[in-house]
Amino acid sequence: MLLKRWLVGDPLKSAQAVHERLPKTLALAVFSSNAISSVAYATEEILLMLILAGTAAISWSMPISFAILFLIVVLTISYRQIVYEYPEGGGAYIVARTNLGDQPALIAAAALMIDYVLTVAVSVAAGISALTSAVPSLFEHREALGLGATIFIIIINLRGVRESGTFFAVPTYFAIGALGVMVVIGSIHALFGQGGSVPPDDQTAVEELTLFLILRAFAAGCSAVTGMEVISNGVKAFRRPEPQNASTTMIYMSLILAALFMGISFLAAHHGILPKTDETVVSQLARLTFGSGALYYTLQIGTMLLLILAANSAFAGFPQLASILARDRYMPRQMATFGDRLVFSNGIIILGIFACFLLVLFHGDPHALIPLYAVGVFISFTLSQAGMVRRWLTKKGPHWQTKLVVNGIGAVTTGVATIILASTKFTQGAWIVFLLIAILVWMFRSIRSHYKAVSEQVALTRDHRPPLPRRNIVLVPINGVNQAVIRAVDYARSRPGEVRAVMVDVDPQATARIQIQWAQWGCGIQLTVLPCPYRSVLSSLLDYVEDLLNKEPDTWVTVVIPEILPARWWHNILHNQRALMLKASLLFKDRVILTDVPFHLKR
Amino acid sequence: MLLKRWLVGDPLKSAQAVHERLPKTLALAVFSSNAISSVAYATEEILLMLILAGTAAISWSMPISFAILFLIVVLTISYRQIVYEYPEGGGAYIVARTNLGDQPALIAAAALMIDYVLTVAVSVAAGISALTSAVPSLFEHREALGLGATIFIIIINLRGVRESGTFFAVPTYFAIGALGVMVVIGSIHALFGQGGSVPPDDQTAVEELTLFLILRAFAAGCSAVTGMEVISNGVKAFRRPEPQNASTTMIYMSLILAALFMGISFLAAHHGILPKTDETVVSQLARLTFGSGALYYTLQIGTMLLLILAANSAFAGFPQLASILARDRYMPRQMATFGDRLVFSNGIIILGIFACFLLVLFHGDPHALIPLYAVGVFISFTLSQAGMVRRWLTKKGPHWQTKLVVNGIGAVTTGVATIILASTKFTQGAWIVFLLIAILVWMFRSIRSHYKAVSEQVALTRDHRPPLPRRNIVLVPINGVNQAVIRAVDYARSRPGEVRAVMVDVDPQATARIQIQWAQWGCGIQLTVLPCPYRSVLSSLLDYVEDLLNKEPDTWVTVVIPEILPARWWHNILHNQRALMLKASLLFKDRVILTDVPFHLKR
Repeated sequence: MLLKRWLVGDPLKSAQAVHERLPKTLALAVFSSNAISSVAYATEEILLMLILAGTAAISWSMPISFAILFLIVVLTISYRQIVYEYPEGGGAYIVARTNLGDQPALIAAAALMIDYVLTVAVSVAAGISALTSAVPSLFEHREALGLGATIFIIIINLRGVRESGTFFAVPTYFAIGALGVMVVIGSIHALFGQGGSVPPDDQTAVEELTLFLILRAFAAGCSAVTGMEVISNGVKAFRRPEPQNASTTMIYMSLILAALFMGISFLAAHHGILPKTDETVVSQLARLTFGSGALYYTLQIGTMLLLILAANSAFAGFPQLASILARDRYMPRQMATFGDRLVFSNGIIILGIFACFLLVLFHGDPHALIPLYAVGVFISFTLSQAGMVRRWLTKKGPHWQTKLVVNGIGAVTTGVATIILASTKFTQGAWIVFLLIAILVWMFRSIRSHYKAVSEQVALTRDHRPPLPRRNIVLVPINGVNQAVIRAVDYARSRPGEVRAVMVDVDPQATARIQIQWAQWGCGIQLTVLPCPYRSVLSSLLDYVEDLLNKEPDTWVTVVIPEILPARWWHNILHNQRALMLKASLLFKDRVILTDVPFHLKR
Repeated sequence: MLLKRWLVGDPLKSAQAVHERLPKTLALAVFSSNAISSVAYATEEILLMLILAGTAAISWSMPISFAILFLIVVLTISYRQIVYEYPEGGGAYIVARTNLGDQPALIAAAALMIDYVLTVAVSVAAGISALTSAVPSLFEHREALGLGATIFIIIINLRGVRESGTFFAVPTYFAIGALGVMVVIGSIHALFGQGGSVPPDDQTAVEELTLFLILRAFAAGCSAVTGMEVISNGVKAFRRPEPQNASTTMIYMSLILAALFMGISFLAAHHGILPKTDETVVSQLARLTFGSGALYYTLQIGTMLLLILAANSAFAGFPQLASILARDRYMPRQMATFGDRLVFSNGIIILGIFACFLLVLFHGDPHALIPLYAVGVFISFTLSQAGMVRRWLTKKGPHWQTKLVVNGIGAVTTGVATIILASTKFTQGAWIVFLLIAILVWMFRSIRSHYKAVSEQVALTRDHRPPLPRRNIVLVPINGVNQAVIRAVDYARSRPGEVRAVMVDVDPQATARIQIQWAQWGCGIQLTVLPCPYRSVLSSLLDYVEDLLNKEPDTWVTVVIPEILPARWWHNILHNQRALMLKASLLFKDRVILTDVPFHLKR
C-alpha cells in the first residue's frame, strides 16, 4: 500500500474533480502529441512502400503527402463540428450510437479500442527507434526499452490527469520546437541551394510501380492522421467553455501536424533520402541539417520523448471510452468506477497490458506494427462522419445544409481512405483487426445481454410480496474443542435461535474425549454426533445438511465454520482444506448460508 | 464428477478396508516389480561406466555384478528382521524414528521421498527405452510417451489398491517369465558354445581404468537393488499373518532379482555386448537369443510393461510414507486423509506431478536420471540398518546377538556403499539430492513447528472461562433494491437482533429513489445512508464499520453481503468485484464476520 501511494499519490476528493480540467496549453500537449508525433514515422512509411519499386519511384512521395494534407484539412473541419455538437465528449462511439444505432456504434468502439492499443505500441516502438538511430548500440535492446517506457507511462497515468499534463507538456513543446527548427533551417538551406546531400544509393526494384503500390504507400502514410480524433473524445477535460477551447486546440494541432509532416516529406524528397533499417528518416534529415553534434542529439531525444509521450493520449482516451461502454453495460461494470486518483485505473492497466503484449509479439519493431495500424481509426472516422451526416438530415437546425456538406465530404473522403487502407493492408495483417473487431463486438453484446438477463432475474415485480420471516437453524461443524471452535460457537449464539454443534464420528475414542470437553466448554449448546460409514467427514456433513433441508422446507440453514486464519498467506496450505471442500460443496445449495468465523493466528 | 467416478470407481466403505489386503501372489507383483525391473537397466549402467576406459575394461562387469549380488543377499537377510520387528510397516523413517531420533528419521524420510519420485521417472523412462529399442521410429517421441505412461499409472492408482494389484500382476509375471526364458536359453547356448556374437566394435578409451571408475561403475549398478525396501514399508497391506507373508514374498523377490541380474550380466559379458544410444543391452541380448521375431518383441513388450508398472510400487509407497509423516505433523494434514477409494489420493497426485516434471526436465532419458538415483535409497538403507543395530543393543530380547550381527553387517555394507555412491556421483548430480534432502528436512521441521505453534495458540487452558454471550449487530450493505438484496435482508432478520441496511450516497438522485423503494420492500429494517466524500463506496463502508467497532467494543459485527452467483463461473468477472474488495478489506478485522447470501442466477 505504501508503495502504491508513493507511486500514484494520495486519493482525491470528488470536489477536486473540476480543478482537474486542463487549460489549452496543457490539453494540446496531452491530446495532440499522438497526432503530431506521427510525423516521426509517416514519411518513412510512405518511402518504405515506394522503394519497393526502386529509387525512381520515391518521386511519388510528394503527391502522396499532398493527398494526406488534404485528409488533415478535411478531418479538422469536420471534427470541429463534432466538438461543438457533442460538448460532453463525442467519440465515434457516441456519435454513431446517437445517429446510426447500436451495431455501427459497437464497431466504432471496437475499432477505436484496438487502435488505442496500437497507438501505444507503435508510438513507443517508434520512440525507441529514434533513440537507437542516435545510439546504435542500443538497437538490440529495443524490445526491453519499449517495455520499460510503457511501464513508465502506465505509472505516470495512474498518478492522475493534471500531473500527467504538466509532465508531458514540456517535452512535447520541446520536441515540436526542435522539429520545427529542423524543418525551417532545412527548408531555407534547400531553397537557397545549401546543405549536404545523401550519397546516391541505387536500390533495385522488387515490384513494379503499379497504382496498387501507390495506394499502399498512401495507406502507410495515413498513419500521419491517426490521433486527430482524440480531442473530440475528451472535450469534457477542457476548461469552460469546453467546445471553443477544444476546437481552438484542434486547429493548433492540425497546423503543427500539417507543417511538420509536409516539411519532413519535402526535405526527404529534396535530399533523396531513402529509408534504412537501423536509422530513421528523421534522424538522417537531422544529421544533414545539424551535423552529428549536440543539436542532432537534442532533436533525437525530443522526437523520442514526443513519441513515447504520444502513447499517453491513448491512456487518456482508452479508459474514457471503456467507462462510457461500461456505463452502457457493454463492458464489465468495474470499468466505469473511478480509481482513487479520479482516473479510470482499470482501463489504464488493461491498455498497458495489451500494449506490452504487442511490443513483445512484434519485438518492438514499429514497421511490423504499422500494417495493423490506422485501419481501425479510419473505420471510426468514417462512422463518425456518416453519423454526423445522418444527424444533420434528421435534426436540421441553423446552417444545416453547410454542415451537411462539410461532414458529407468528410464521410466520403474517410470512407474512400478506409477502403484503400483495408484493401491494401488486408493480407499484411489488417485481417487481424477485422477479426478482432468482430470478436470485440460479440463480447460487448454478450456482456450487455448477460447484464440484461441478470437485471430481469433480480427485478422485483408487482407480484412479489415482502417475504415472511423464516426460521434459521445454525450449525457449527467441529472436530475438536479449542479456542477457534469456541469462538465460532460464541458467535453462533450471539443472536437468539436454534444453534447445533455437529461433529463426525471418525474415531470413537476421540469422539468420547471431545464430548467430555464439550460438556465444559460448549456454552450449553447441543452437540450432535454424526456416523461416518465412508470415512469421509465431508459426505457425512453433507448428508446431514441435506436431511435438514428436506425436513425443514422453509428454514435457512446457516453453517458457521471455525477457520484458522494464518499469519502468513502461504500457511493456508496447512489449514482449512476441509473447510474449503465443505464450502465448495454447500455453495450451490439454495437455503444454505456459509459464515466463516476466523481465528487470527499471531505466528 | 461423473468423469471422476468413471475413472476411479465408486467410494468404498471403511468396513471394506480389510478385504483390500493383498495375497502374496499379488503383493509380489505390486511390491517387487520396482526391484526386479531394475535388471532392465542395471547391467547397462555398469557397462556404460566401464566403456569409458575402453572395450577391455568391460571384463570388470562380472566382479562388480558379484559385489552387487552380495548387497542383495545382505539386504534380504537384514530387511527380513525389520519386517518381523515392525509388522505395522517399518520404513526407514519408522525404524530411524523409534531408534535413532528425529533428525536421522527425517533425513531417511526425505531421501525416500526423493527416490520414490526418481523411481517413477527412471522406470518409466527405461520402459519407454525398451519400447524404442524395438520400434526405433518412436525414439523421438519418448518424452511424450513417458508422460502418457505416467498419467496412465496415476489414474490406475487412484482407482485403489486391489484393482491395481490384479491389473499389475499379469504383466509383471509375464515379463519375469520372458526374461527368465531368455536368461535360461541364453545361458544354455553360452555354456554349450552355441549362439551368435556381437560384431567386434572397439571403442577407444576416454578415461583410464582407475579404481574410481570401477567404483563409479559399481555405484551405477547399485540401481539394481533400489526398491528392495518397498516390502518393509508395506507390511500392513499383506494378509494375516503379515510379517510371515511379507518375509516370504521378500525372499521370492530377491531370488528372482538375483537370478535375472546375474544372468543378464553374465550373458552381456559372455557376448561382449556394449551399450548403444538407441538400443538397450537387454534388447541386444534378446536379439542374439531369439532373433528379431515374435519372441523378441514379446520380451521387449514384457520388459516395457514391467518397467512402467514398476513405477506403481512407488505409488504404493510414497503416499503411505507421506501419510505417516502427516500423522506426525511433518506434512500437511490433508496428506493423512483417506481419499474416497481408500488410497491416499493426495500423495498419488503429488508423486505423479513431480515424476512428470522430472521426465520433462530430463527429456525422458533414463541415463540422465540415473546419477540422481539410488543415493537416497542407500542413505535410507544405512539409517534403517543403523537403527536396528541400536535397537538390538537397547532392547536385546531372544537371540539379540545374532540379530545384532546381521544388521551390523547390513549397516556397514550399506554404509560403505552409500559413501561410494555419494562420492562418485556427487558432481554428476547427487549434490542435487543432498540439497533436496536438506530442503525437505527443513520443510518437515517448519511444518511441524507451525502446527505446534497453532495448537498452542488455540489451546484452551484452565484460565479460560466459557465466554459470556455478546451482542451482534448485522449490517446489510445495499446499492439498490432487487431480489438479491431482499433475499439478504430476509436472511439477516431470520434471527432476532439488530439489523441495519446501509447504503453509500454516490448519486443523490439514485439514493432518493432507493429510499422510496426501501419503504415498500425493506421489511421494516432501518436504512442508513452514508456520505461518500471520496467517491469510494468501499472506504465509506469501511469507515462506518470502523466507527461501529470503536463505539461498541464488545459486540460482533456481521456484514451480510448480497451476492450474485452466476450460472457460469466466467460470468464472475462481471459481478461482485465490489463485494470481493469489501470482503478482502474486512477479513482481518477482529470482530467482523462476513456472510455471503448468494442469489443463484439461472442463466
